[in-house]
Amino acid sequence: MSKGDLVRKLWAGFDAGDFDGVSPLLHEDFVAEWPQSRERMRGRANFLAVNRNYPGVSRCSVRRIVEAGDVVVSEVEIVNDGKPPIFAVSFFEVREGRLARAVEYWGEPYEAPAWRSQWVEKLS
Amino acid sequence: MSKGDLVRKLWAGFDAGDFDGVSPLLHEDFVAEWPQSRERMRGRANFLAVNRNYPGVSRCSVRRIVEAGDVVVSEVEIVNDGKPPIFAVSFFEVREGRLARAVEYWGEPYEAPAWRSQWVEKLS
Repeated sequence: MSKGDLVRKLWAGFDAGDFDGVSPLLHEDFVAEWPQSRERMRGRANFLAVNRNYPGVSRCSVRRIVEAGDVVVSEVEIVNDGKPPIFAVSFFEVREGRLARAVEYWGEPYEAPAWRSQWVEKLS
Repeated sequence: MSKGDLVRKLWAGFDAGDFDGVSPLLHEDFVAEWPQSRERMRGRANFLAVNRNYPGVSRCSVRRIVEAGDVVVSEVEIVNDGKPPIFAVSFFEVREGRLARAVEYWGEPYEAPAWRSQWVEKLS
């Protein structure tokens, strides 16, 4: 399994709500950091507990995977309970064939501001 | 100049407010997409106009650059007028030694929710 496939499989598992199934993809001492809320989950069990208990049902579609050495970046669109999509960008580090670390960012939808509309077109 | 250096130079220019200086790094038909607000800037001039007119002074520090073929991903921390940092993750595509395309996400700071505090530690 390529490093990118590890990450694809992780998101497929999250998409299916299969948190036990993704566990073997992660090192036991997996560490995830969420800089926006200044949170760190230390250990696979804590990371999976947060994901398992996240409110609502999250459907996850991978838009892009970028692989460079031991780093894999994923660009993912997440629809939670049918709400407008949010976007997740995650920087994973792979060690010994498993995911060892992640730094993740969450991009919420927002209204395009009027001040820049003269230079911008609307994405369909 | 490596592909990663193109992106480092772009952010250094934005950090300095030097929008004329970064112009040669971009193709004239550079296209940027901001999926969260469903905005597209078509053409270098429009992209630079939006950045030049962005409210406040933005100081930009690159946290990480990931290079893979023609793709460069940047992870950047931005402090605008001294407010709490926001995070930018940008997926650039390079063509003929210049930046041709970007898909960018913006992560705003937010309060860590109480429901997950039992599995989480605070980042210093």
